[in-house]
Amino acid sequence: MVWPEDGHTQEAVSRAAQEGFIEPVLVCSEETRKNYAGAHGFRSVTVQGAEEAARKAVGLVREKQADIIMKGFLNTDVLLRAILDKELGILPKDTVLTHITAARLPEYHKLLFFTDAAVIPAPTDQQRREQVRYLVDFCHAFQIECPKVALIHCSEKVDERHFPYTASYSTLRKEGGSGAFGPCIIDGPLDLKTSCSAEAMKVKQICSPIGGDADALVFPDIEAGNLFYKAITLFCHAETAAVLQGTMAPVVLPSRGDTIDSKFYSLALASLISK
Amino acid sequence: MVWPEDGHTQEAVSRAAQEGFIEPVLVCSEETRKNYAGAHGFRSVTVQGAEEAARKAVGLVREKQADIIMKGFLNTDVLLRAILDKELGILPKDTVLTHITAARLPEYHKLLFFTDAAVIPAPTDQQRREQVRYLVDFCHAFQIECPKVALIHCSEKVDERHFPYTASYSTLRKEGGSGAFGPCIIDGPLDLKTSCSAEAMKVKQICSPIGGDADALVFPDIEAGNLFYKAITLFCHAETAAVLQGTMAPVVLPSRGDTIDSKFYSLALASLISK
Repeated sequence: MVWPEDGHTQEAVSRAAQEGFIEPVLVCSEETRKNYAGAHGFRSVTVQGAEEAARKAVGLVREKQADIIMKGFLNTDVLLRAILDKELGILPKDTVLTHITAARLPEYHKLLFFTDAAVIPAPTDQQRREQVRYLVDFCHAFQIECPKVALIHCSEKVDERHFPYTASYSTLRKEGGSGAFGPCIIDGPLDLKTSCSAEAMKVKQICSPIGGDADALVFPDIEAGNLFYKAITLFCHAETAAVLQGTMAPVVLPSRGDTIDSKFYSLALASLISK
Repeated sequence: MVWPEDGHTQEAVSRAAQEGFIEPVLVCSEETRKNYAGAHGFRSVTVQGAEEAARKAVGLVREKQADIIMKGFLNTDVLLRAILDKELGILPKDTVLTHITAARLPEYHKLLFFTDAAVIPAPTDQQRREQVRYLVDFCHAFQIECPKVALIHCSEKVDERHFPYTASYSTLRKEGGSGAFGPCIIDGPLDLKTSCSAEAMKVKQICSPIGGDADALVFPDIEAGNLFYKAITLFCHAETAAVLQGTMAPVVLPSRGDTIDSKFYSLALASLISK
């Protein structure tokens, strides 16, 4: 727990510890050590400030003293700098860093996983392949045996001229079919409605093995992913959890506006996929 | 009404006529003329098929015999071809064709207008300027005296390297401030939450004259616009109306999956902004 100096983070951490799925290690101020760690009997490492906390926490992962990193009361930039440091960081060379969200929507019949709402502006084909791989691994970790992954576009047509990535969608679909990602069904380009509504799929007379029953969505770029994340949390009462993938340990990186619930769920998500 | 051979279109048209805000002219088959136009006392022009209907309807607008075009039971492509025909169409040279949606969301306190969910893949600066102009005109037609227009991005920072359009957002903001679009407030880049939630704006410690109270949203590209449209209709119980702007008359271009309500609202929207 990197610099957990705010009440929101502390409450999420206490709940997760109480539920028994994490054992917190606080990298915190002397004051937090005394008042919070002490009161709960949590392990702690005292540091002088946020930057030192970030470096220290990253070090704990490298030394296999910690399995998950969670951001507390500091700027995302500061933590990311420590994580991405070429010598002392925890992103292996040539590994794709991306952001995975799990959402529970009152209007959808199951969890919906998606990427990328926060990290990669416009994924290359290679980055998108890794995004698919992470998503499928995520779903497997959630006991979804053969997850349905929809590659999202505004229509169902490949249009290489205006949307070059729709051509790479076809490649990913074929790779999925040949078992490159383990058991899963990949299809696209598909729009959101066709992906998540069997009725919409029928009306549009489209036939997809996703069958309007997607487990996971891959968005074309960060604008689409971020907008989806914000639309469902703002207008659809969605509950979300999110982590960074690609790093040596999952990283929970809450936004300033996230609820305590969302932080708690994100910790749960991180522990589920932590190896 | 271009080839209104389906019950959905007919019902929307009948309701709009009954409410008294349109006077339908059906460009239809002999059968529809007899069974539907006759029964309601609607004017009609008989044609042999969808293509002829599209050309005929566009001709009626050119001859000032019609003020709105609505698509019935035909492919969008067929109608668009007639509309965009260089000699016989109704898109004036050098005019930007774009798509405007008005949405009522249970979780938002007023109508929300946005562009572009359907036409321009990646707007140029000039196209985006026209999108803003249309949106502001729309809001004025809805008696919103000083509409608040948010230029949407995944963050609040101008990032010319990864997102070149965020630089043009700054230009549009200045142009708005100098009165180029009439009375309005334009700000951006802003994310969806900051645009539509005063609380989120506060949490993020951002200060914008939009104040979390946007009337209208300009999306960076069609992927974002289309996704927003589909997310709110699929997951948020949004009611929507939409028209094409730029043509000599507003064009109502419903999707196959749209409800009768949505078609009816779109006709209402078109009549409100028809000159």
